[in-house]
Amino acid sequence: MKVVHIAEALAYDGSQLRSHWIYETTGIVGDAVAWFVGPCLVATDALVDLADRRAAAEIRAAVMLHFLVEHFDPDLARAVLRQRLLVAVAGEALRDLAGVAVERRGDDLFVAGRKLSVSIATISPISALIHFGINVDPAGAPVPAVGLAELQVDPCRAGEEIARRYVQEIEDLQVARVKVKWVW
Amino acid sequence: MKVVHIAEALAYDGSQLRSHWIYETTGIVGDAVAWFVGPCLVATDALVDLADRRAAAEIRAAVMLHFLVEHFDPDLARAVLRQRLLVAVAGEALRDLAGVAVERRGDDLFVAGRKLSVSIATISPISALIHFGINVDPAGAPVPAVGLAELQVDPCRAGEEIARRYVQEIEDLQVARVKVKWVW
Amino acid sequence: MKVVHIAEALAYDGSQLRSHWIYETTGIVGDAVAWFVGPCLVATDALVDLADRRAAAEIRAAVMLHFLVEHFDPDLARAVLRQRLLVAVAGEALRDLAGVAVERRGDDLFVAGRKLSVSIATISPISALIHFGINVDPAGAPVPAVGLAELQVDPCRAGEEIARRYVQEIEDLQVARVKVKWVW
Amino acid sequence: MKVVHIAEALAYDGSQLRSHWIYETTGIVGDAVAWFVGPCLVATDALVDLADRRAAAEIRAAVMLHFLVEHFDPDLARAVLRQRLLVAVAGEALRDLAGVAVERRGDDLFVAGRKLSVSIATISPISALIHFGINVDPAGAPVPAVGLAELQVDPCRAGEEIARRYVQEIEDLQVARVKVKWVW
Amino acid sequence: MKVVHIAEALAYDGSQLRSHWIYETTGIVGDAVAWFVGPCLVATDALVDLADRRAAAEIRAAVMLHFLVEHFDPDLARAVLRQRLLVAVAGEALRDLAGVAVERRGDDLFVAGRKLSVSIATISPISALIHFGINVDPAGAPVPAVGLAELQVDPCRAGEEIARRYVQEIEDLQVARVKVKWVW
Amino acid sequence: MKVVHIAEALAYDGSQLRSHWIYETTGIVGDAVAWFVGPCLVATDALVDLADRRAAAEIRAAVMLHFLVEHFDPDLARAVLRQRLLVAVAGEALRDLAGVAVERRGDDLFVAGRKLSVSIATISPISALIHFGINVDPAGAPVPAVGLAELQVDPCRAGEEIARRYVQEIEDLQVARVKVKWVW
Repeated sequence: MKVVHIAEALAYDGSQLRSHWIYETTGIVGDAVAWFVGPCLVATDALVDLADRRAAAEIRAAVMLHFLVEHFDPDLARAVLRQRLLVAVAGEALRDLAGVAVERRGDDLFVAGRKLSVSIATISPISALIHFGINVDPAGAPVPAVGLAELQVDPCRAGEEIARRYVQEIEDLQVARVKVKWVW
Repeated sequence: MKVVHIAEALAYDGSQLRSHWIYETTGIVGDAVAWFVGPCLVATDALVDLADRRAAAEIRAAVMLHFLVEHFDPDLARAVLRQRLLVAVAGEALRDLAGVAVERRGDDLFVAGRKLSVSIATISPISALIHFGINVDPAGAPVPAVGLAELQVDPCRAGEEIARRYVQEIEDLQVARVKVKWVW
Repeated sequence: MKVVHIAEALAYDGSQLRSHWIYETTGIVGDAVAWFVGPCLVATDALVDLADRRAAAEIRAAVMLHFLVEHFDPDLARAVLRQRLLVAVAGEALRDLAGVAVERRGDDLFVAGRKLSVSIATISPISALIHFGINVDPAGAPVPAVGLAELQVDPCRAGEEIARRYVQEIEDLQVARVKVKWVW
Repeated sequence: MKVVHIAEALAYDGSQLRSHWIYETTGIVGDAVAWFVGPCLVATDALVDLADRRAAAEIRAAVMLHFLVEHFDPDLARAVLRQRLLVAVAGEALRDLAGVAVERRGDDLFVAGRKLSVSIATISPISALIHFGINVDPAGAPVPAVGLAELQVDPCRAGEEIARRYVQEIEDLQVARVKVKWVW
Repeated sequence: MKVVHIAEALAYDGSQLRSHWIYETTGIVGDAVAWFVGPCLVATDALVDLADRRAAAEIRAAVMLHFLVEHFDPDLARAVLRQRLLVAVAGEALRDLAGVAVERRGDDLFVAGRKLSVSIATISPISALIHFGINVDPAGAPVPAVGLAELQVDPCRAGEEIARRYVQEIEDLQVARVKVKWVW
Repeated sequence: MKVVHIAEALAYDGSQLRSHWIYETTGIVGDAVAWFVGPCLVATDALVDLADRRAAAEIRAAVMLHFLVEHFDPDLARAVLRQRLLVAVAGEALRDLAGVAVERRGDDLFVAGRKLSVSIATISPISALIHFGINVDPAGAPVPAVGLAELQVDPCRAGEEIARRYVQEIEDLQVARVKVKWVW
């Protein structure tokens, strides 16, 4: 599994959540985490979370640290488990980087009751896709929110660290699968 | 998914890590978390972690809080993902209960560099099985270790809380799978 | 698995056979059976059965009792098995309700050689979908047909009963999977 | 899928419910239904239904028509669906052969409230296995029971017919899977 | 698995690589190999190989022997394995028919360093699809290429032989799966 | 996927065909090809091919080049496909090394009608396992056979080359899976 940082300015609008977007954008082949910093505006029509769409929600922040993950394994049960793990890993990394308590509730992170992140996981017919966005500047968010700027965490430092830890976690899991005996 | 507390004294020796042990012991049918407090001694021959077995290790603690989880889904990739999530959930719960920093490294928890837990996940031909043990009194452990007693956390309080949060997490994941649109 | 009755008038034209239609129409999340009473007209272009489409068939009845089932399990082998079970369950329920012999041939029901029902099962990338329609008034059907009106069965009574039995069957199957030992 | 009638006398004691028993007994390779007539006595220790085993039950009948089915598809969800379909098919066939009302409750058949059959489905690591037994002479059964002799149905006639219909059903399902378009 | 020869002139342009194309074109239901002889021109936009597309490649030959294979098993790992086997089988058949050394490199065949074939395998949500094209007259190919005409192999003889051997191979594999014991 | 050469003398008797044998013997973790040179004697009772066992066959050769392959993917359909590919790869390598025509028939290799190899593929509950043995000195074989000694091929040269090519093939297949678009 590879990590790729997309340095150019890029706004996340939901259209990135599709198979092979990482490949087409970066040339990286296979399971990968791409991360970049940029604004976030996902209109209602572009939401894949049907509860949000039904509520006519939109997702908005002035600047976010975005992670786009693709695993070529179109199994949604595994995808949502990997998503939770990514969010847990990010919470752990941010605690270490920011020195503040970061609370995970499902696939969201909070600091002192304010929302720090958004996330979604789904599948295409050929892969699983995860978007995970951490506010840098939450301006525009529809709920009380906090961002990395306020927490004095450099988004690029966080991007590198979270991507690195997630890839490490996924590689550890590969090893975990091959070194246990089955039981009766 | 159900939770069952086994109140009677029970030593974990590895033989509990098999399909339908929860059913045979408690009468609970289906995916479940069983938890109990008791000593831990897994001899080398009973280890399912082949690296540990090769190293002629054994797992030992005077008292542990044990979780035995069974999911009727014999997919090892999902099993190890669920195991990681259980460990992350436990770390989060213990931070809240103990007020100390709990560090997760893969499927282990540490407090100030001392080992707090052991864990293994594997499959039977009909299900996935996880054992997760948190030291209460780590006496006998072969590495520097810490336990809930020293952290002043009541093991039953921790058992209830971790089992409850894990089941909540698994149920949330069921919902996460059914409310997203697939993407292109 | 949930049951939802859609009380408002609704014509089935094939466009309902898609992922999350039940959610979008009723707000019900997850595996579900939706049932409603209304006309049926599926034009050739909207058919997903390729043999019917090749034959330039269309599906038509003045009034049908419709069942739309979604399971978030995109496995076509399981989908067609569940479809057959739904049809068998419906045949059993109608025998009990109507007091007449109902014959099942594959995924069709017949009474005295006249066709009582139509059905199709397929998958989306995220789920399996079944449509099962039982004639109430078969006017317009291209083959000799019979309907619930002639059998003096109230379609709402039948809708409730069949949906209830199917959900019971699916829940029983969950239990059947977790209480057997594997064999050598 | 093949059908094989085992003509020699054979008592079912549960040991037949294992992978490749049909091959080893008859030389038939692959998915198959074997049927034979003989006594049934499954001791508690040989039961794979854990609820029955916990209840210290045993399964007994003086003479049964036995079906042993193996599908080389070790997916328990599909196995229990196929089992239900086999029981439904048998109920339909017996109604036609005996001219009496046969009621299916899950994987059991009843005539006028008396139990006509027993069944279990499980998996081996390489296949799924189903046993389905229909009483011919229910003497010894622990509950009110009825048999084919009393219903004046020739067990060999029933064996042939049920096996034939089940294989037809399974083959139809293969076709059902390949002639539908996927939907959005 | 069935073989169908499409005798009428047909140009391969990539649009044939979709679910149910064989059924819609020939009426053949289920897993099948269709083969035909005709020109090949796949424009960049119609390529499903993303590396080729990124390189703005196109696939072109004046005349090719085309194989279009569909397996109703949307598992890409199995699809690419079957593709390799098809290419290996074709290499073996051409050695026998042409009496020249045919070298396989992955999913390509070469004769004396010149490219003889092109291939791609992918999935639809309901099936796996393989295109395999062997040059008859490679005119227009963007790399040094060779064709069956130069090798003095009749394309229809080759089409029949390769399709026959592939189907034989797939049927052998079915048997291979059902006659082995599982191991510990 | 790793390659490991076991240099010490080792006789293949069938007991090596089990999960984690490579790990326990060599310490290599994960998907791997182990190869070694030694005698072969698999008694009837140790055969996993049921047709061979039924025929009371045994497998015997004075010296063989053995390949033991484990993939942590307990899917028998994929296992037998990988086995065929391994045999095809070996045939190609031996043609290059020996300069003689090597014919593949299913999972066997022949030279001028004499049998060069034996092979079996099966699954454990946690992995797939392949044994592939190429005669070096076929003395003792029950059918007309040929070996690498007679073909003047060094078995260690062949072992290295075949293992290398197979691993290359498997790694190519990983890439093939992640660089194609899905189709409609």
